[in-house]
Amino acid sequence: MGDDCALLRPNAGLDLALTTDMLVEGRHFAADAAPRSLGHKALAVNLSDLAAMGAAPRWALLAIGLPAVAEDWLAEFSAGLFALAERFGVELIGGDTTRSALRTISIVAIGEVPAGVALYRSGARAGDDVWVSGELGGAALALRRPDIAEAARRLHEPEPRVELGERLRGLAHAAIDVSDGLVGDLGHILERSRLAAVLDYARIPRAAAFAALGDTELERDCVLSGGDDYELLFTAAPDERPALQALSRELGLALTRIGTIEPGAPRLEVRDERGAPLAYRGGYDHFRGNA
Amino acid sequence: MGDDCALLRPNAGLDLALTTDMLVEGRHFAADAAPRSLGHKALAVNLSDLAAMGAAPRWALLAIGLPAVAEDWLAEFSAGLFALAERFGVELIGGDTTRSALRTISIVAIGEVPAGVALYRSGARAGDDVWVSGELGGAALALRRPDIAEAARRLHEPEPRVELGERLRGLAHAAIDVSDGLVGDLGHILERSRLAAVLDYARIPRAAAFAALGDTELERDCVLSGGDDYELLFTAAPDERPALQALSRELGLALTRIGTIEPGAPRLEVRDERGAPLAYRGGYDHFRGNA
Repeated sequence: MGDDCALLRPNAGLDLALTTDMLVEGRHFAADAAPRSLGHKALAVNLSDLAAMGAAPRWALLAIGLPAVAEDWLAEFSAGLFALAERFGVELIGGDTTRSALRTISIVAIGEVPAGVALYRSGARAGDDVWVSGELGGAALALRRPDIAEAARRLHEPEPRVELGERLRGLAHAAIDVSDGLVGDLGHILERSRLAAVLDYARIPRAAAFAALGDTELERDCVLSGGDDYELLFTAAPDERPALQALSRELGLALTRIGTIEPGAPRLEVRDERGAPLAYRGGYDHFRGNA
Repeated sequence: MGDDCALLRPNAGLDLALTTDMLVEGRHFAADAAPRSLGHKALAVNLSDLAAMGAAPRWALLAIGLPAVAEDWLAEFSAGLFALAERFGVELIGGDTTRSALRTISIVAIGEVPAGVALYRSGARAGDDVWVSGELGGAALALRRPDIAEAARRLHEPEPRVELGERLRGLAHAAIDVSDGLVGDLGHILERSRLAAVLDYARIPRAAAFAALGDTELERDCVLSGGDDYELLFTAAPDERPALQALSRELGLALTRIGTIEPGAPRLEVRDERGAPLAYRGGYDHFRGNA
Protein backbone atom coordinates (compact mmCIF):
# COMPACT_ATOMS: atom_id res chain seq x y z
CA MET A 1 0.00 0.00 0.00
CA GLY A 2 1.00 3.65 -0.23
CA ASP A 3 0.83 3.73 -4.02
CA ASP A 4 -2.18 4.35 -6.22
CA CYS A 5 -2.71 0.64 -6.75
CA ALA A 6 -1.76 -2.70 -5.30
CA LEU A 7 0.30 -4.93 -7.56
CA LEU A 8 0.09 -8.68 -7.61
CA ARG A 9 1.75 -11.31 -9.73
CA PRO A 10 -0.69 -14.10 -10.71
CA ASN A 11 0.56 -17.65 -10.76
CA ALA A 12 0.73 -19.24 -14.19
CA GLY A 13 -2.07 -21.67 -15.01
CA LEU A 14 -4.44 -20.34 -12.38
CA ASP A 15 -7.61 -18.37 -12.97
CA LEU A 16 -8.49 -15.57 -10.59
CA ALA A 17 -11.90 -15.49 -8.90
CA LEU A 18 -13.06 -12.08 -7.67
CA THR A 19 -16.02 -11.20 -5.52
CA THR A 20 -17.28 -8.03 -3.90
CA ASP A 21 -19.84 -7.28 -1.20
CA MET A 22 -21.02 -4.06 0.38
CA LEU A 23 -22.21 -4.00 3.99
CA VAL A 24 -24.12 -0.94 5.19
CA GLU A 25 -24.94 0.09 8.76
CA GLY A 26 -28.64 -0.21 9.47
CA ARG A 27 -29.09 -2.64 6.61
CA HIS A 28 -26.56 -5.42 7.12
CA PHE A 29 -25.43 -4.68 10.64
CA ALA A 30 -26.64 -2.64 13.62
CA ALA A 31 -24.95 0.64 14.52
CA ASP A 32 -23.81 -0.95 17.79
CA ALA A 33 -22.56 -4.20 16.23
CA ALA A 34 -19.33 -5.43 17.78
CA PRO A 35 -16.62 -4.15 15.41
CA ARG A 36 -14.41 -7.23 15.85
CA SER A 37 -17.21 -9.56 14.77
CA LEU A 38 -18.02 -7.24 11.91
CA GLY A 39 -14.43 -7.32 10.66
CA HIS A 40 -14.62 -11.10 10.73
CA LYS A 41 -17.97 -11.27 8.97
CA ALA A 42 -17.15 -8.70 6.29
CA LEU A 43 -14.25 -10.85 5.10
CA ALA A 44 -15.98 -14.16 5.83
CA VAL A 45 -18.87 -13.53 3.44
CA ASN A 46 -16.41 -12.84 0.64
CA LEU A 47 -14.28 -15.91 1.42
CA SER A 48 -17.52 -17.89 1.38
CA ASP A 49 -18.21 -16.68 -2.17
CA LEU A 50 -14.73 -17.80 -3.22
CA ALA A 51 -15.24 -21.20 -1.55
CA ALA A 52 -18.50 -21.65 -3.46
CA MET A 53 -16.52 -21.44 -6.69
CA GLY A 54 -13.75 -23.74 -5.49
CA ALA A 55 -11.21 -20.92 -5.30
CA ALA A 56 -8.44 -20.66 -2.71
CA PRO A 57 -8.45 -17.18 -1.14
CA ARG A 58 -5.28 -15.15 -1.63
CA TRP A 59 -5.80 -11.38 -1.53
CA ALA A 60 -8.32 -8.78 -0.35
CA LEU A 61 -8.97 -5.06 -0.74
CA LEU A 62 -11.00 -3.02 1.72
CA ALA A 63 -12.89 0.23 1.11
CA ILE A 64 -14.47 1.60 4.25
CA GLY A 65 -16.55 4.66 5.07
CA LEU A 66 -16.73 5.80 8.69
CA PRO A 67 -18.60 8.72 10.28
CA ALA A 68 -15.54 10.30 11.90
CA VAL A 69 -12.12 9.42 13.16
CA ALA A 70 -12.91 6.22 15.03
CA GLU A 71 -9.57 4.70 15.87
CA ASP A 72 -10.80 2.30 18.53
CA TRP A 73 -13.60 1.04 16.33
CA LEU A 74 -11.27 0.63 13.36
CA ALA A 75 -8.67 -1.15 15.48
CA GLU A 76 -11.26 -3.70 16.65
CA PHE A 77 -12.68 -4.10 13.16
CA SER A 78 -9.19 -4.66 11.75
CA ALA A 79 -8.36 -7.18 14.48
CA GLY A 80 -11.38 -9.28 13.51
CA LEU A 81 -10.65 -9.00 9.81
CA PHE A 82 -6.93 -9.76 10.10
CA ALA A 83 -7.45 -12.73 12.42
CA LEU A 84 -9.57 -14.42 9.76
CA ALA A 85 -7.28 -13.29 6.93
CA GLU A 86 -4.24 -14.77 8.64
CA ARG A 87 -6.01 -18.03 9.31
CA PHE A 88 -6.48 -18.54 5.57
CA GLY A 89 -3.31 -16.83 4.32
CA VAL A 90 -5.18 -13.88 2.80
CA GLU A 91 -3.08 -10.77 2.18
CA LEU A 92 -4.72 -7.34 2.44
CA ILE A 93 -3.20 -5.54 -0.53
CA GLY A 94 -5.07 -2.27 -0.74
CA GLY A 95 -7.84 -0.08 0.42
CA ASP A 96 -9.55 3.23 0.70
CA THR A 97 -10.75 4.95 3.87
CA THR A 98 -13.24 7.75 3.63
CA ARG A 99 -15.92 9.52 5.62
CA SER A 100 -19.52 8.42 5.50
CA ALA A 101 -22.40 9.23 7.84
CA LEU A 102 -23.28 5.52 7.74
CA ARG A 103 -20.55 2.99 8.34
CA THR A 104 -20.06 1.23 5.01
CA ILE A 105 -17.73 -1.64 4.25
CA SER A 106 -16.87 -2.88 0.79
CA ILE A 107 -14.48 -5.77 0.40
CA VAL A 108 -13.07 -7.42 -2.68
CA ALA A 109 -11.63 -10.88 -2.21
CA ILE A 110 -9.49 -12.55 -4.84
CA GLY A 111 -8.78 -16.25 -5.03
CA GLU A 112 -7.02 -18.66 -7.30
CA VAL A 113 -8.42 -21.73 -8.96
CA PRO A 114 -6.74 -23.99 -11.50
CA ALA A 115 -7.94 -23.12 -15.01
CA GLY A 116 -11.13 -24.95 -15.93
CA VAL A 117 -12.12 -26.45 -12.57
CA ALA A 118 -14.11 -23.62 -10.96
CA LEU A 119 -17.57 -24.57 -9.67
CA TYR A 120 -20.59 -22.80 -11.15
CA ARG A 121 -24.25 -22.51 -10.23
CA SER A 122 -25.06 -23.74 -13.69
CA GLY A 123 -23.33 -27.12 -13.41
CA ALA A 124 -26.06 -29.26 -11.77
CA ARG A 125 -27.20 -32.42 -13.61
CA ALA A 126 -30.42 -34.39 -13.36
CA GLY A 127 -29.92 -37.27 -10.93
CA ASP A 128 -27.39 -35.38 -8.78
CA ASP A 129 -27.68 -35.53 -5.02
CA VAL A 130 -28.15 -32.20 -3.25
CA TRP A 131 -25.75 -31.74 -0.32
CA VAL A 132 -25.23 -29.14 2.33
CA SER A 133 -22.38 -28.61 4.80
CA GLY A 134 -22.78 -27.98 8.53
CA GLU A 135 -26.24 -27.01 9.72
CA LEU A 136 -28.79 -24.42 8.75
CA GLY A 137 -31.13 -21.95 10.41
CA GLY A 138 -28.88 -20.75 13.23
CA ALA A 139 -28.19 -17.29 11.83
CA ALA A 140 -31.88 -16.65 11.12
CA LEU A 141 -32.80 -17.88 14.59
CA ALA A 142 -30.40 -15.36 16.11
CA LEU A 143 -32.35 -12.50 14.53
CA ARG A 144 -35.41 -13.56 16.54
CA ARG A 145 -33.72 -15.02 19.59
CA PRO A 146 -30.50 -13.02 20.10
CA ASP A 147 -30.23 -14.60 23.58
CA ILE A 148 -29.21 -17.99 22.14
CA ALA A 149 -25.41 -17.74 22.09
CA GLU A 150 -24.82 -20.59 19.63
CA ALA A 151 -27.18 -18.96 17.12
CA ALA A 152 -25.74 -15.48 17.68
CA ARG A 153 -22.27 -16.78 16.87
CA ARG A 154 -23.52 -18.22 13.59
CA LEU A 155 -24.99 -14.86 12.65
CA HIS A 156 -22.16 -12.60 13.72
CA GLU A 157 -19.10 -14.76 13.11
CA PRO A 158 -19.88 -17.19 10.31
CA GLU A 159 -17.21 -19.68 9.35
CA PRO A 160 -16.47 -19.63 5.62
CA ARG A 161 -16.09 -23.19 4.28
CA VAL A 162 -12.79 -22.44 2.59
CA GLU A 163 -11.22 -25.91 2.74
CA LEU A 164 -14.42 -27.61 1.69
CA GLY A 165 -14.74 -25.36 -1.35
CA GLU A 166 -11.28 -26.25 -2.58
CA ARG A 167 -11.85 -29.96 -1.99
CA LEU A 168 -15.13 -29.96 -3.92
CA ARG A 169 -13.28 -29.27 -7.17
CA GLY A 170 -13.82 -32.27 -9.40
CA LEU A 171 -16.36 -33.76 -6.96
CA ALA A 172 -19.28 -31.32 -7.08
CA HIS A 173 -21.14 -30.34 -10.26
CA ALA A 174 -22.60 -27.06 -8.95
CA ALA A 175 -22.15 -25.05 -5.78
CA ILE A 176 -23.33 -21.90 -4.01
CA ASP A 177 -23.08 -20.61 -0.47
CA VAL A 178 -26.20 -20.27 1.66
CA SER A 179 -26.42 -16.51 2.08
CA ASP A 180 -30.02 -15.84 1.01
CA GLY A 181 -31.49 -19.02 2.49
CA LEU A 182 -31.66 -22.66 1.40
CA VAL A 183 -34.64 -22.40 -0.95
CA GLY A 184 -33.44 -19.10 -2.41
CA ASP A 185 -29.91 -20.27 -3.05
CA LEU A 186 -30.95 -23.68 -4.37
CA GLY A 187 -33.30 -21.68 -6.58
CA HIS A 188 -30.27 -19.91 -8.08
CA ILE A 189 -28.71 -23.28 -8.95
CA LEU A 190 -31.98 -24.52 -10.47
CA GLU A 191 -32.49 -21.36 -12.53
CA ARG A 192 -28.95 -21.40 -13.86
CA SER A 193 -28.91 -25.15 -14.45
CA ARG A 194 -32.49 -25.23 -15.88
CA LEU A 195 -33.48 -28.13 -13.63
CA ALA A 196 -35.87 -28.98 -10.78
CA ALA A 197 -35.20 -30.40 -7.32
CA VAL A 198 -36.90 -32.22 -4.47
CA LEU A 199 -35.72 -31.75 -0.88
CA ASP A 200 -36.47 -34.06 2.04
CA TYR A 201 -37.19 -31.63 4.91
CA ALA A 202 -36.47 -34.11 7.70
CA ARG A 203 -32.94 -34.68 6.37
CA ILE A 204 -31.90 -31.04 6.44
CA PRO A 205 -29.33 -30.55 9.21
CA ARG A 206 -30.29 -27.74 11.57
CA ALA A 207 -28.99 -25.84 14.57
CA ALA A 208 -29.28 -27.89 17.77
CA ALA A 209 -31.11 -25.05 19.52
CA PHE A 210 -34.30 -25.78 17.57
CA ALA A 211 -34.85 -29.11 19.34
CA ALA A 212 -35.28 -27.39 22.70
CA LEU A 213 -37.50 -24.62 21.33
CA GLY A 214 -40.23 -26.87 19.96
CA ASP A 215 -41.51 -24.14 17.60
CA THR A 216 -41.98 -26.02 14.35
CA GLU A 217 -43.14 -22.94 12.38
CA LEU A 218 -40.12 -20.88 13.38
CA GLU A 219 -37.82 -23.82 12.79
CA ARG A 220 -39.12 -24.47 9.31
CA ASP A 221 -38.89 -20.81 8.36
CA CYS A 222 -35.31 -20.48 9.61
CA VAL A 223 -34.11 -23.77 8.11
CA LEU A 224 -35.68 -23.32 4.67
CA SER A 225 -35.74 -19.57 4.21
CA GLY A 226 -33.28 -18.05 6.69
CA GLY A 227 -30.08 -16.63 5.24
CA ASP A 228 -26.61 -15.84 6.48
CA ASP A 229 -25.52 -19.36 7.42
CA TYR A 230 -22.70 -19.41 4.82
CA GLU A 231 -22.72 -23.17 4.50
CA LEU A 232 -21.97 -24.65 1.09
CA LEU A 233 -24.87 -26.09 -0.91
CA PHE A 234 -23.76 -28.30 -3.77
CA THR A 235 -24.79 -31.06 -6.12
CA ALA A 236 -22.81 -34.18 -7.00
CA ALA A 237 -23.34 -37.48 -8.79
CA PRO A 238 -24.51 -40.38 -6.56
CA ASP A 239 -21.21 -42.15 -7.41
CA GLU A 240 -19.43 -39.55 -5.29
CA ARG A 241 -21.22 -40.43 -2.04
CA PRO A 242 -18.32 -42.46 -0.62
CA ALA A 243 -15.81 -39.73 -1.53
CA LEU A 244 -17.96 -37.04 0.07
CA GLN A 245 -18.51 -39.10 3.21
CA ALA A 246 -14.75 -39.59 3.48
CA LEU A 247 -14.19 -35.86 2.94
CA SER A 248 -16.70 -35.08 5.69
CA ARG A 249 -14.76 -37.24 8.14
CA GLU A 250 -11.43 -35.78 7.06
CA LEU A 251 -12.57 -32.17 7.50
CA GLY A 252 -14.58 -32.87 10.65
CA LEU A 253 -17.50 -31.11 8.97
CA ALA A 254 -20.95 -32.62 8.46
CA LEU A 255 -21.91 -33.09 4.81
CA THR A 256 -25.54 -34.13 4.47
CA ARG A 257 -27.49 -35.38 1.49
CA ILE A 258 -30.83 -33.54 1.56
CA GLY A 259 -32.43 -34.13 -1.85
CA THR A 260 -32.18 -34.78 -5.54
CA ILE A 261 -31.87 -32.78 -8.77
CA GLU A 262 -34.59 -33.77 -11.24
CA PRO A 263 -35.21 -33.08 -14.90
CA GLY A 264 -37.70 -30.38 -15.81
CA ALA A 265 -38.16 -26.63 -15.61
CA PRO A 266 -36.76 -24.85 -12.53
CA ARG A 267 -39.00 -25.78 -9.60
CA LEU A 268 -38.34 -26.75 -6.02
CA GLU A 269 -40.46 -29.11 -3.93
CA VAL A 270 -39.81 -29.63 -0.23
CA ARG A 271 -41.40 -32.81 1.16
CA ASP A 272 -42.28 -33.73 4.73
CA GLU A 273 -41.69 -37.14 6.25
CA ARG A 274 -44.82 -38.55 4.61
CA GLY A 275 -43.82 -37.25 1.18
CA ALA A 276 -46.35 -34.39 1.20
CA PRO A 277 -45.25 -30.99 -0.14
CA LEU A 278 -44.39 -28.40 2.49
CA ALA A 279 -45.14 -24.70 1.99
CA TYR A 280 -42.13 -22.39 2.28
CA ARG A 281 -41.36 -18.73 2.09
CA GLY A 282 -39.39 -17.62 -0.97
CA GLY A 283 -35.74 -16.68 -0.74
CA TYR A 284 -34.35 -13.34 0.08
CA ASP A 285 -33.45 -10.67 -2.41
CA HIS A 286 -31.34 -7.82 -1.08
CA PHE A 287 -32.88 -5.39 -3.49
CA ARG A 288 -36.57 -6.24 -3.28
CA GLY A 289 -36.55 -7.08 0.41
CA ASN A 290 -38.27 -10.13 1.79
CA ALA A 291 -40.42 -11.88 -0.78
CA MET B 1 -21.95 -12.48 -13.59
CA GLY B 2 -24.67 -14.61 -12.01
CA ASP B 3 -22.19 -16.72 -10.06
CA ASP B 4 -20.67 -16.05 -6.67
CA CYS B 5 -17.52 -14.65 -8.22
CA ALA B 6 -16.18 -13.33 -11.47
CA LEU B 7 -13.43 -15.37 -13.08
CA LEU B 8 -10.60 -13.94 -15.11
CA ARG B 9 -7.57 -15.48 -16.75
CA PRO B 10 -4.47 -13.30 -16.30
CA ASN B 11 -2.06 -13.01 -19.20
CA ALA B 12 1.35 -14.57 -18.61
CA GLY B 13 4.16 -12.15 -17.81
CA LEU B 14 1.85 -9.35 -16.73
CA ASP B 15 1.37 -8.08 -13.20
CA LEU B 16 -2.09 -7.01 -12.09
CA ALA B 17 -2.66 -3.56 -10.60
CA LEU B 18 -5.75 -3.18 -8.42
CA THR B 19 -7.29 -0.07 -6.97
CA THR B 20 -10.46 0.68 -5.04
CA ASP B 21 -12.31 3.87 -4.19
CA MET B 22 -15.50 4.53 -2.26
CA LEU B 23 -17.72 7.51 -3.15
CA VAL B 24 -20.39 8.52 -0.65
CA GLU B 25 -23.34 10.84 -1.18
CA GLY B 26 -22.93 14.08 0.72
CA ARG B 27 -19.20 13.59 0.94
CA HIS B 28 -17.96 12.99 -2.61
CA PHE B 29 -21.04 13.97 -4.57
CA ALA B 30 -24.28 15.87 -3.97
CA ALA B 31 -27.58 14.02 -3.59
CA ASP B 32 -28.78 15.66 -6.81
CA ALA B 33 -25.61 14.95 -8.81
CA ALA B 34 -26.31 13.92 -12.39
CA PRO B 35 -26.16 10.10 -12.31
CA ARG B 36 -24.60 9.82 -15.77
CA SER B 37 -21.68 12.06 -14.81
CA LEU B 38 -21.34 10.18 -11.55
CA GLY B 39 -21.10 6.85 -13.37
CA HIS B 40 -18.36 8.34 -15.51
CA LYS B 41 -16.48 9.83 -12.58
CA ALA B 42 -16.72 6.76 -10.34
CA LEU B 43 -14.88 4.70 -12.94
CA ALA B 44 -12.64 7.57 -14.10
CA VAL B 45 -11.02 8.06 -10.70
CA ASN B 46 -10.10 4.37 -10.60
CA LEU B 47 -8.76 4.35 -14.17
CA SER B 48 -6.72 7.39 -13.18
CA ASP B 49 -5.13 5.40 -10.35
CA LEU B 50 -4.24 2.63 -12.80
CA ALA B 51 -2.77 5.16 -15.25
CA ALA B 52 -0.61 6.61 -12.46
CA MET B 53 1.04 3.19 -12.12
CA GLY B 54 1.42 2.69 -15.86
CA ALA B 55 -1.20 -0.06 -15.96
CA ALA B 56 -3.59 -0.68 -18.85
CA PRO B 57 -7.16 -0.96 -17.53
CA ARG B 58 -8.88 -4.29 -18.19
CA TRP B 59 -11.61 -5.16 -15.66
CA ALA B 60 -13.84 -3.53 -13.05
CA LEU B 61 -16.18 -4.59 -10.25
CA LEU B 62 -18.92 -2.38 -8.87
CA ALA B 63 -20.55 -2.49 -5.43
CA ILE B 64 -23.35 0.03 -5.08
CA GLY B 65 -25.75 0.96 -2.29
CA LEU B 66 -28.94 2.80 -3.21
CA PRO B 67 -31.79 4.09 -1.03
CA ALA B 68 -34.55 2.22 -2.87
CA VAL B 69 -35.36 0.74 -6.23
CA ALA B 70 -34.12 3.55 -8.46
CA GLU B 71 -34.17 2.13 -11.95
CA ASP B 72 -33.95 5.43 -13.82
CA TRP B 73 -31.09 6.62 -11.68
CA LEU B 74 -29.24 3.32 -12.04
CA ALA B 75 -29.80 3.28 -15.81
CA GLU B 76 -28.25 6.74 -16.15
CA PHE B 77 -25.41 5.90 -13.80
CA SER B 78 -24.68 2.72 -15.77
CA ALA B 79 -24.80 4.59 -19.08
CA GLY B 80 -22.09 6.97 -17.87
CA LEU B 81 -19.98 4.18 -16.45
CA PHE B 82 -20.27 1.89 -19.47
CA ALA B 83 -19.55 4.65 -21.99
CA LEU B 84 -16.18 5.25 -20.33
CA ALA B 85 -15.54 1.53 -19.83
CA GLU B 86 -16.13 0.82 -23.51
CA ARG B 87 -13.88 3.64 -24.60
CA PHE B 88 -10.95 1.99 -22.82
CA GLY B 89 -11.95 -1.66 -23.30
CA VAL B 90 -12.75 -2.21 -19.62
CA GLU B 91 -14.98 -5.20 -18.87
CA LEU B 92 -17.37 -5.04 -15.89
CA ILE B 93 -16.97 -8.52 -14.44
CA GLY B 94 -18.90 -8.41 -11.19
CA GLY B 95 -20.78 -6.47 -8.64
CA ASP B 96 -23.08 -6.21 -5.70
CA THR B 97 -26.20 -4.07 -5.40
CA THR B 98 -27.66 -3.37 -2.00
CA ARG B 99 -29.78 -0.87 -0.13
CA SER B 100 -28.26 2.08 1.66
CA ALA B 101 -29.88 5.26 2.94
CA LEU B 102 -26.93 7.13 1.38
CA ARG B 103 -25.96 6.36 -2.18
CA THR B 104 -22.57 4.69 -1.96
CA ILE B 105 -20.39 3.54 -4.83
CA SER B 106 -17.37 1.33 -4.49
CA ILE B 107 -15.44 0.36 -7.59
CA VAL B 108 -12.45 -1.88 -8.03
CA ALA B 109 -10.49 -1.47 -11.24
CA ILE B 110 -7.92 -3.97 -12.38
CA GLY B 111 -5.22 -3.31 -14.92
CA GLU B 112 -2.28 -5.09 -16.44
CA VAL B 113 1.31 -3.96 -16.54
CA PRO B 114 4.35 -5.89 -17.78
CA ALA B 115 6.25 -7.35 -14.82
CA GLY B 116 8.76 -4.91 -13.38
CA VAL B 117 7.79 -1.69 -15.18
CA ALA B 118 5.02 -0.30 -12.95
CA LEU B 119 5.47 3.33 -11.86
CA TYR B 120 5.69 4.06 -8.14
CA ARG B 121 5.50 7.16 -6.00
CA SER B 122 8.85 6.15 -4.57
CA GLY B 123 10.81 6.25 -7.83
CA ALA B 124 11.76 9.95 -8.07
CA ARG B 125 15.47 10.82 -8.31
CA ALA B 126 17.33 14.03 -7.47
CA GLY B 127 17.73 16.09 -10.64
CA ASP B 128 14.47 14.82 -12.20
CA ASP B 129 12.14 17.28 -13.87
CA VAL B 130 8.63 17.48 -12.44
CA TRP B 131 5.94 17.26 -15.13
CA VAL B 132 2.18 17.51 -15.18
CA SER B 133 -0.34 16.70 -17.92
CA GLY B 134 -3.19 18.94 -19.04
CA GLU B 135 -4.07 21.82 -16.77
CA LEU B 136 -4.87 22.21 -13.10
CA GLY B 137 -7.35 24.03 -10.89
CA GLY B 138 -10.48 23.61 -13.00
CA ALA B 139 -12.19 21.08 -10.75
CA ALA B 140 -11.55 23.14 -7.62
CA LEU B 141 -12.78 26.26 -9.37
CA ALA B 142 -16.06 24.51 -10.18
CA LEU B 143 -16.74 24.03 -6.47
CA ARG B 144 -16.76 27.82 -6.03
CA ARG B 145 -18.01 28.86 -9.44
CA PRO B 146 -20.39 26.09 -10.63
CA ASP B 147 -21.60 28.45 -13.37
CA ILE B 148 -18.36 28.06 -15.36
CA ALA B 149 -19.15 25.16 -17.69
CA GLU B 150 -15.56 24.30 -18.59
CA ALA B 151 -14.67 24.01 -14.90
CA ALA B 152 -17.81 22.04 -14.06
CA ARG B 153 -16.96 19.51 -16.72
CA ARG B 154 -13.50 19.02 -15.20
CA LEU B 155 -15.07 18.38 -11.80
CA HIS B 156 -17.92 16.12 -12.86
CA GLU B 157 -16.47 14.28 -15.84
CA PRO B 158 -12.72 14.09 -15.43
CA GLU B 159 -10.73 12.44 -18.20
CA PRO B 160 -8.44 9.70 -16.90
CA ARG B 161 -5.04 9.88 -18.61
CA VAL B 162 -5.04 6.21 -19.55
CA GLU B 163 -2.91 6.37 -22.69
CA LEU B 164 -0.39 8.70 -21.10
CA GLY B 165 0.03 6.37 -18.12
CA GLU B 166 0.88 3.43 -20.33
CA ARG B 167 3.29 5.48 -22.43
CA LEU B 168 5.15 6.77 -19.36
CA ARG B 169 6.48 3.27 -18.63
CA GLY B 170 10.24 3.43 -19.00
CA LEU B 171 10.15 7.23 -19.35
CA ALA B 172 8.97 8.44 -15.94
CA HIS B 173 10.67 7.60 -12.65
CA ALA B 174 7.69 8.29 -10.38
CA ALA B 175 4.04 9.12 -10.98
CA ILE B 176 0.79 9.90 -9.19
CA ASP B 177 -2.54 11.32 -10.25
CA VAL B 178 -3.65 14.75 -9.02
CA SER B 179 -6.62 13.82 -6.86
CA ASP B 180 -5.78 15.59 -3.59
CA GLY B 181 -4.18 18.66 -5.20
CA LEU B 182 -0.79 19.41 -6.71
CA VAL B 183 1.11 20.13 -3.49
CA GLY B 184 -0.53 17.26 -1.65
CA ASP B 185 0.13 14.70 -4.36
CA LEU B 186 3.65 15.89 -5.07
CA GLY B 187 4.08 15.63 -1.30
CA HIS B 188 3.24 11.92 -1.54
CA ILE B 189 5.99 11.44 -4.13
CA LEU B 190 8.48 13.38 -2.00
CA GLU B 191 7.64 11.46 1.16
CA ARG B 192 7.93 8.09 -0.55
CA SER B 193 11.06 9.05 -2.51
CA ARG B 194 12.68 10.85 0.47
CA LEU B 195 13.48 13.91 -1.64
CA ALA B 196 12.63 17.62 -1.92
CA ALA B 197 11.24 19.65 -4.84
CA VAL B 198 10.99 23.20 -6.14
CA LEU B 199 8.05 24.26 -8.33
CA ASP B 200 7.93 27.32 -10.57
CA TYR B 201 4.40 28.65 -10.02
CA ALA B 202 4.23 30.61 -13.27
CA ARG B 203 4.91 27.46 -15.29
CA ILE B 204 2.02 25.46 -13.86
CA PRO B 205 -0.63 25.03 -16.56
CA ARG B 206 -4.08 26.11 -15.39
CA ALA B 207 -7.66 26.24 -16.55
CA ALA B 208 -8.23 29.05 -19.08
CA ALA B 209 -11.14 30.41 -17.02
CA PHE B 210 -8.74 31.85 -14.44
CA ALA B 211 -7.39 34.45 -16.87
CA ALA B 212 -10.79 36.14 -17.16
CA LEU B 213 -11.51 36.00 -13.42
CA GLY B 214 -8.49 38.00 -12.29
CA ASP B 215 -8.69 36.58 -8.75
CA THR B 216 -5.09 35.68 -8.01
CA GLU B 217 -5.83 34.32 -4.51
CA LEU B 218 -8.53 31.96 -5.75
CA GLU B 219 -6.40 30.96 -8.73
CA ARG B 220 -3.38 30.13 -6.60
CA ASP B 221 -5.46 28.12 -4.16
CA CYS B 222 -7.16 26.11 -6.92
CA VAL B 223 -3.98 25.51 -8.92
CA LEU B 224 -1.75 24.51 -6.00
CA SER B 225 -4.17 22.97 -3.53
CA GLY B 226 -7.33 22.08 -5.44
CA GLY B 227 -7.97 18.40 -6.02
CA ASP B 228 -9.98 16.28 -8.42
CA ASP B 229 -8.24 17.26 -11.67
CA TYR B 230 -6.98 13.71 -12.31
CA GLU B 231 -4.04 14.86 -14.37
CA LEU B 232 -0.83 12.84 -14.10
CA LEU B 233 2.04 14.30 -12.10
CA PHE B 234 5.36 12.60 -12.78
CA THR B 235 9.11 12.95 -12.63
CA ALA B 236 11.61 12.09 -15.34
CA ALA B 237 15.29 12.57 -16.09
CA PRO B 238 16.13 15.76 -18.08
CA ASP B 239 17.39 13.46 -20.87
CA GLU B 240 13.79 12.48 -21.53
CA ARG B 241 12.59 15.99 -22.40
CA PRO B 242 12.61 15.41 -26.18
CA ALA B 243 10.79 12.08 -25.80
CA LEU B 244 8.14 13.64 -23.55
CA GLN B 245 7.65 16.60 -25.88
CA ALA B 246 7.18 14.19 -28.78
CA LEU B 247 4.73 12.15 -26.70
CA SER B 248 2.78 15.31 -25.89
CA ARG B 249 2.40 16.07 -29.60
CA GLU B 250 1.46 12.49 -30.40
CA LEU B 251 -1.26 12.31 -27.72
CA GLY B 252 -2.48 15.87 -28.31
CA LEU B 253 -2.12 16.42 -24.56
CA ALA B 254 -0.08 19.19 -22.95
CA LEU B 255 2.84 17.92 -20.85
CA THR B 256 4.45 20.74 -18.93
CA ARG B 257 7.69 20.88 -16.98
CA ILE B 258 6.89 22.72 -13.74
CA GLY B 259 9.85 22.11 -11.43
CA THR B 260 12.73 19.99 -10.22
CA ILE B 261 13.35 17.20 -7.74
CA GLU B 262 16.19 18.10 -5.37
CA PRO B 263 18.22 16.18 -2.83
CA GLY B 264 17.28 16.54 0.83
CA ALA B 265 14.51 15.66 3.25
CA PRO B 266 10.91 15.80 1.93
CA ARG B 267 10.06 19.47 1.46
CA LEU B 268 8.28 21.44 -1.22
CA GLU B 269 8.99 25.01 -2.21
CA VAL B 270 6.80 26.88 -4.69
CA ARG B 271 8.47 29.97 -6.16
CA ASP B 272 6.93 33.01 -7.81
CA GLU B 273 8.34 34.67 -10.92
CA ARG B 274 11.00 36.50 -8.92
CA GLY B 275 12.14 33.31 -7.19
CA ALA B 276 10.48 34.16 -3.86
CA PRO B 277 8.68 31.40 -1.95
CA LEU B 278 4.90 31.38 -2.23
CA ALA B 279 2.67 30.34 0.66
CA TYR B 280 0.26 27.50 -0.09
CA ARG B 281 -2.42 25.51 1.64
CA GLY B 282 -1.54 21.89 2.42
CA GLY B 283 -3.05 19.02 0.49
CA TYR B 284 -6.30 17.32 1.15
CA ASP B 285 -6.75 14.27 3.31
CA HIS B 286 -10.08 12.51 2.97
CA PHE B 287 -9.95 11.34 6.53
CA ARG B 288 -8.83 14.44 8.38
CA GLY B 289 -10.65 16.90 6.15
CA ASN B 290 -8.97 20.02 4.85
CA ALA B 291 -5.60 20.63 6.45
